[in-house]
Amino acid sequence: MTFDPHAGRHRMPVVFGPSAGPRQGPDGRTFDMSRAPRTSAAISFLTERSRLEALLPPGCELDGPPVVTVEHTMLRELEWLAGRGYNLLGVRFPVRYQGREETARGPFLSVLWENRPEPIITGREELGYAKLYCELPEPRILRGAHCYAASWDGHEFLRMEIDGLDEATPPPAPAADGVLHYRYLPAISGVAPSVSEMVISPSGGSPMRHRSFRRGTGRLAFVRSTWEQLPTMYHIVNALADLPILDITGASIAETVGAKDLSDQRVLR
Amino acid sequence: MTFDPHAGRHRMPVVFGPSAGPRQGPDGRTFDMSRAPRTSAAISFLTERSRLEALLPPGCELDGPPVVTVEHTMLRELEWLAGRGYNLLGVRFPVRYQGREETARGPFLSVLWENRPEPIITGREELGYAKLYCELPEPRILRGAHCYAASWDGHEFLRMEIDGLDEATPPPAPAADGVLHYRYLPAISGVAPSVSEMVISPSGGSPMRHRSFRRGTGRLAFVRSTWEQLPTMYHIVNALADLPILDITGASIAETVGAKDLSDQRVLR
Amino acid sequence: MTFDPHAGRHRMPVVFGPSAGPRQGPDGRTFDMSRAPRTSAAISFLTERSRLEALLPPGCELDGPPVVTVEHTMLRELEWLAGRGYNLLGVRFPVRYQGREETARGPFLSVLWENRPEPIITGREELGYAKLYCELPEPRILRGAHCYAASWDGHEFLRMEIDGLDEATPPPAPAADGVLHYRYLPAISGVAPSVSEMVISPSGGSPMRHRSFRRGTGRLAFVRSTWEQLPTMYHIVNALADLPILDITGASIAETVGAKDLSDQRVLR
Amino acid sequence: MTFDPHAGRHRMPVVFGPSAGPRQGPDGRTFDMSRAPRTSAAISFLTERSRLEALLPPGCELDGPPVVTVEHTMLRELEWLAGRGYNLLGVRFPVRYQGREETARGPFLSVLWENRPEPIITGREELGYAKLYCELPEPRILRGAHCYAASWDGHEFLRMEIDGLDEATPPPAPAADGVLHYRYLPAISGVAPSVSEMVISPSGGSPMRHRSFRRGTGRLAFVRSTWEQLPTMYHIVNALADLPILDITGASIAETVGAKDLSDQRVLR
Repeated sequence: MTFDPHAGRHRMPVVFGPSAGPRQGPDGRTFDMSRAPRTSAAISFLTERSRLEALLPPGCELDGPPVVTVEHTMLRELEWLAGRGYNLLGVRFPVRYQGREETARGPFLSVLWENRPEPIITGREELGYAKLYCELPEPRILRGAHCYAASWDGHEFLRMEIDGLDEATPPPAPAADGVLHYRYLPAISGVAPSVSEMVISPSGGSPMRHRSFRRGTGRLAFVRSTWEQLPTMYHIVNALADLPILDITGASIAETVGAKDLSDQRVLR
Repeated sequence: MTFDPHAGRHRMPVVFGPSAGPRQGPDGRTFDMSRAPRTSAAISFLTERSRLEALLPPGCELDGPPVVTVEHTMLRELEWLAGRGYNLLGVRFPVRYQGREETARGPFLSVLWENRPEPIITGREELGYAKLYCELPEPRILRGAHCYAASWDGHEFLRMEIDGLDEATPPPAPAADGVLHYRYLPAISGVAPSVSEMVISPSGGSPMRHRSFRRGTGRLAFVRSTWEQLPTMYHIVNALADLPILDITGASIAETVGAKDLSDQRVLR
Repeated sequence: MTFDPHAGRHRMPVVFGPSAGPRQGPDGRTFDMSRAPRTSAAISFLTERSRLEALLPPGCELDGPPVVTVEHTMLRELEWLAGRGYNLLGVRFPVRYQGREETARGPFLSVLWENRPEPIITGREELGYAKLYCELPEPRILRGAHCYAASWDGHEFLRMEIDGLDEATPPPAPAADGVLHYRYLPAISGVAPSVSEMVISPSGGSPMRHRSFRRGTGRLAFVRSTWEQLPTMYHIVNALADLPILDITGASIAETVGAKDLSDQRVLR
Repeated sequence: MTFDPHAGRHRMPVVFGPSAGPRQGPDGRTFDMSRAPRTSAAISFLTERSRLEALLPPGCELDGPPVVTVEHTMLRELEWLAGRGYNLLGVRFPVRYQGREETARGPFLSVLWENRPEPIITGREELGYAKLYCELPEPRILRGAHCYAASWDGHEFLRMEIDGLDEATPPPAPAADGVLHYRYLPAISGVAPSVSEMVISPSGGSPMRHRSFRRGTGRLAFVRSTWEQLPTMYHIVNALADLPILDITGASIAETVGAKDLSDQRVLR
């Protein structure tokens, strides 16, 4: 058997040797992500504090007003996918984490849908991102309105739209320690976890720069769904559909270039 | 925060509560898999012992001749997917595992491709199956020849074909302790694993029964592929393409009904 | 230029020579369709006569009660597609056609959706079938209920379901002259047509035989849709959604084998 | 029956009334295509005159050197598709047509693949474009190399690549009367056509303007394919694969905005 766990990053199946992925190329070197283009459309809304608190992971409290941000992102020209891209849809809200030894502030990424299985697998296992699969088509762009949808097996469970776009100044980088995630991997027994820990994607270190930034008017709705429609994630979509949208606090579309490979991901103590 | 890890099986994202899946319905109960139909097409071939030994997981040795079985399976009418189905392609070979406390014999499932992300996520995390994603279309059936293909992003990396089919007696259940898997989950640091263990899907307990069984003549070929074509799994496909096919030892298509939910999966000590 | 219109059936592009298709193989011979399997799920409902009369083609009147049949069909093992298959969804109702010289009775196939472009092109141009494209997934089959859907670009516009299935005697072949179609091809000018004629797929000549036939209880609904959701066929789906379902008059699932290649299609005089 | 052929453009099925499409909105008005973005990647190559002459339609001769252009185009934000887009792959070469009454010069569009069925149907029937379906993924863009592929049912039949791109001056509009097409629609009888005519998409009248234009180095190859791989178009792909590439004479990527709806398409007398 030739499996050497010190020979580089491994993912199942490991008996075939190290796996190339976002943080490891075929030759063991890392990838250049400094020119990868990204288009992100984000809508933020104020919701009820108590409803949102029900979605906090252990050790976390809301950090400021209960504002949820839903962001649709298109990544392109990714070296680790040999030039391919994929789309993402994330839901986050600001939290403060108090661990045994340290404290961290930043958006908690409660769920992140992606339309390609490979980054889902690497992201869940190597980073602890709460990634799931869904269909995320390119937006329809009709007379200035950008229309986004998320669906699974033909069932649309999110619609969001931004129009009235005008050039604006990109916001400064948020004063956050990083993006927070709750990494959880079950044990074979099915009850107690193999892994349960808060992890952070630290702020800083990214070569990201804006190519354009526009603000507009946003609308969004999660669609209440049945078990038959979404048999493995109706509970997630319905919890999000149950968050009342008290006020839309922002809507923007950003075109940026450059990212980092997240190899600085670390467990919060 | 309402997350209660004792409230049932959880998968990321866990803050939304327990996740329905193959081993847990929306009401916490398990699913009836006793009538789920399955069609499996399998081809076995003799290869070089030393080449196959290079793919053994820790603690394992080959159990008998170096015979590899490639099996394409179509699962349908699955309750946990609310009646949907999916297709699989597995590669296995017989091994004997010697653990610290126990011994087990059975096919080692070295890699299992599936064409739906949800069973991949649950299978990797809850069961330790080495599942990956690829496209697995229904077979072409042309004048009695059943033609199977596996591809990723438009690149075909496996072709297999069975023809000359005749009704035959289904083989007896193999004298195996179960199907063996090497469960491996990396740590955030990226080198040492969070989890590294042999697990077994024990034989027995399945209501599976044959509706038909046919033997025929088989051909198969893995296609050597570049990093550009398969940027996260060229090394797996190329390792399989490098296994010489010394002799085709069997080819069959079975239609069966009934399965179990694999909740008896356990770690080998 | 080598184009010889007498060398066999041609479809655009014609400069590359004759096109293989359902009625012409690569060697110019026809295909054997006598063993192609087919699964058809049909629901019939009584509607308002006047509403249905608004959908009659020129020269036609309703033939008996205003009963509409919606049928989902899965074709497999098609020789002309080298063993592939595809799914169909048709809407038909019985009419009597009075031409200048002849009369014909049979179901008028008002629209036929298919999930593969090639039979759509050949069917529209060579046969005059009113075929359109949509997604037609395999049915979900959950605890005996067969659930069908039709969608376009993620928008579901038809749901139908049959459960409570019991074996029954297949109905006798209907006393029809054939299936009727209104073939219409516009001229470049865009107003007057290049072709406008009633055509018939004559009854008889098919080697079709039943493998099973089951009757059950059916439900169906077309979903009213916007131009944004179905920009080229909202008017069709909405016209069907506007047909009141006064009574479900039948629901069945048939498994059959054998078809003909429809090369006996002819224009009604 | 309410069908009124003078009420607007109709396509099968016509009994539901006029069909919205590229040249007719839901209210009967035309669409604004003046802001629709388009990205086109084109490679031209010199081939053998006699081989190319075998692909000429009736009444045509080559106009100048036997240079073939293969162009991959991405159309986005199309009003007639309510903001959606699609991709195209065309093969053209310059011809001179001598009709009974008139003469025309311009590129003959021998075949045009598209990855969406609706423009295929409208283009074939309303315009006489020789459109067919295939998969046309977004290009992979890896370290400056743009990699394009065309496939059908998982079989890749064209690969093209452009790298070494530098900004350049867009070429002047070609001195052509328009793009030429051979419109052919079979009759039900299957031999003599219902329609057989040369049509032209006249030059001029388009609001198209360049946003960027880059020249680079190109490579392309059509892949010889079997009937099993491409059962309705192996003969087309193989005819193109048989054209020797004597010299690559140009490779460029253009980003443009604005198009016309081609309602000025006309039959050449």
